[in-house]
Amino acid sequence: MENWITRLFDIRYPIIQAGMIWCSGWKLAAAVSNAGGLGLIGSASMNPEILEEHIRKCRAATNKPFGVNVPLMFSYTEEIMKVLIREKIKIVFTSAGNPSLWTPRLKEEGMTVVHVVASLKSARKCAESGVDAIVAEGFEAGGHNGREETTTMTLIPLIRKSVSLPLIAAGGIATGRSMLAAFALGAEGVQMGTRFVMTEESSAHPGFKKRILESKDGDTTLMIKKLAPVRLLRNRFSEAIGQMEAKGASAGELAEFLGKGRAMRGMFEGDLEEGELEIGQVSALLDVIRPAGAVVEEIMKEFNEAKNELTAL
Amino acid sequence: MENWITRLFDIRYPIIQAGMIWCSGWKLAAAVSNAGGLGLIGSASMNPEILEEHIRKCRAATNKPFGVNVPLMFSYTEEIMKVLIREKIKIVFTSAGNPSLWTPRLKEEGMTVVHVVASLKSARKCAESGVDAIVAEGFEAGGHNGREETTTMTLIPLIRKSVSLPLIAAGGIATGRSMLAAFALGAEGVQMGTRFVMTEESSAHPGFKKRILESKDGDTTLMIKKLAPVRLLRNRFSEAIGQMEAKGASAGELAEFLGKGRAMRGMFEGDLEEGELEIGQVSALLDVIRPAGAVVEEIMKEFNEAKNELTAL
Repeated sequence: MENWITRLFDIRYPIIQAGMIWCSGWKLAAAVSNAGGLGLIGSASMNPEILEEHIRKCRAATNKPFGVNVPLMFSYTEEIMKVLIREKIKIVFTSAGNPSLWTPRLKEEGMTVVHVVASLKSARKCAESGVDAIVAEGFEAGGHNGREETTTMTLIPLIRKSVSLPLIAAGGIATGRSMLAAFALGAEGVQMGTRFVMTEESSAHPGFKKRILESKDGDTTLMIKKLAPVRLLRNRFSEAIGQMEAKGASAGELAEFLGKGRAMRGMFEGDLEEGELEIGQVSALLDVIRPAGAVVEEIMKEFNEAKNELTAL
Repeated sequence: MENWITRLFDIRYPIIQAGMIWCSGWKLAAAVSNAGGLGLIGSASMNPEILEEHIRKCRAATNKPFGVNVPLMFSYTEEIMKVLIREKIKIVFTSAGNPSLWTPRLKEEGMTVVHVVASLKSARKCAESGVDAIVAEGFEAGGHNGREETTTMTLIPLIRKSVSLPLIAAGGIATGRSMLAAFALGAEGVQMGTRFVMTEESSAHPGFKKRILESKDGDTTLMIKKLAPVRLLRNRFSEAIGQMEAKGASAGELAEFLGKGRAMRGMFEGDLEEGELEIGQVSALLDVIRPAGAVVEEIMKEFNEAKNELTAL
């Protein structure tokens, strides 16, 4: 299968593994890239030294293309970008910020730049900023989300209609069938986060993975909208947040209750009650933990089977 | 095109026009049924006498199958059901309630019964209650929604995996492409509300239709969750609700502010600032008002074109 996305990244399948806080280090990224997809190192939970180490280990583990995801909301973005330039990283996914901030500089270095958006307005800004492709992420996605709450089903056709850049769909996509649905809506590639959390190579805590296995629909909620919206798996911490929000807690009160290191505590250290557990709605659908390479193969197999079923309609 | 859904209702295309409050009387239902889809009269904004009139006019306007949608949350449901039984209505879509309440009685009368759900749990209840098909409606849908906030992209595969009943996808679906996406996810039919509001035959106020033409992504929000969640188009009324909710307003305070007749005032009478404007997220994608029959034809044309494109991948 060859298309706009496979050519852009020089990969075999248009499947991107999302760069995720605390869950996607070099092991996961290398495994996905080795299987023919595009692996991304999630830099948001790394300081520059740790990131450098992950990049070097990833290079040792694969000779295929891989990339790094950089949220633009942190104070040390400058330091992170210096690492990427020094290490001659070829593919960067930026998110949670304005694409015009870094795109020109990264393009000067010869990088392929992709930006993550949650609205048509941001997608248009991407086109103006000269990015090479867009990830459009729906309300159902895990982690930090857009304020518009537009779901993948609406967002993809909306952007496809007005923006002529390669389009990668994200949010609610975890299988070959949902990948096919995203293609029907007008995307040329998919980015999956939750599905790759549930692999042997992801650095999510085993207790967090087990909790996801047991989760059902309605167990995640988009919360903390007054501060920075994030989709959380229900636990003691999220319920406390919910109670504060129902009573009209302010952004400041929420920030104080959140404190520091909640995400590390939940997703990496496995404190399943007091930690922050960021995950997509599609977690309700997942009931197995597999090697990442097998996941890529399974997705493509299902994609092709479902395509043949549709053709026969 | 023949499948589980077309055979169940004896229709040409597996496209159902949602039964909507204030927007779907006999004119719209008859037009959709005449075009080969399934038209539904929305009984929620009708008293028994008005409903009877709409059923008779619909029968005069089409000899094709049509149905009636009945939300089970109102006190006069009993009276509405008596009308359906007396008029020998063949197809009933129930929503907003427990499917075990009315399904056995309606099945005794020989009716085909479909129930609308927003979660896997409710879908399982449908199977136990003996309904003939399920409408699974995602978070992005207009009108009253589920509390789980599960989007169409996640909900359809989740229900398809565990429940073996004909499955109709709703929420975020307005075109042939999104219909194809729903089929890729495992549905055999689609229900569209917003798309059919934007037809010449819908009884939505022309000012409301015009406002939808101008709307963009992020202009609808799921609100009033403490009372009964509903997706609203942004206006002075919704902003007031938003401010109350941010301050932690109680269900009682919200009910008092809502008062009576807000939906009629907005959607039917055209008070675009103080009325309640219920519409789906996909409103952002729509930029034309057409006859309902032409809409059905266009959807099927696009569905087939998109299917051929996917096949060529």
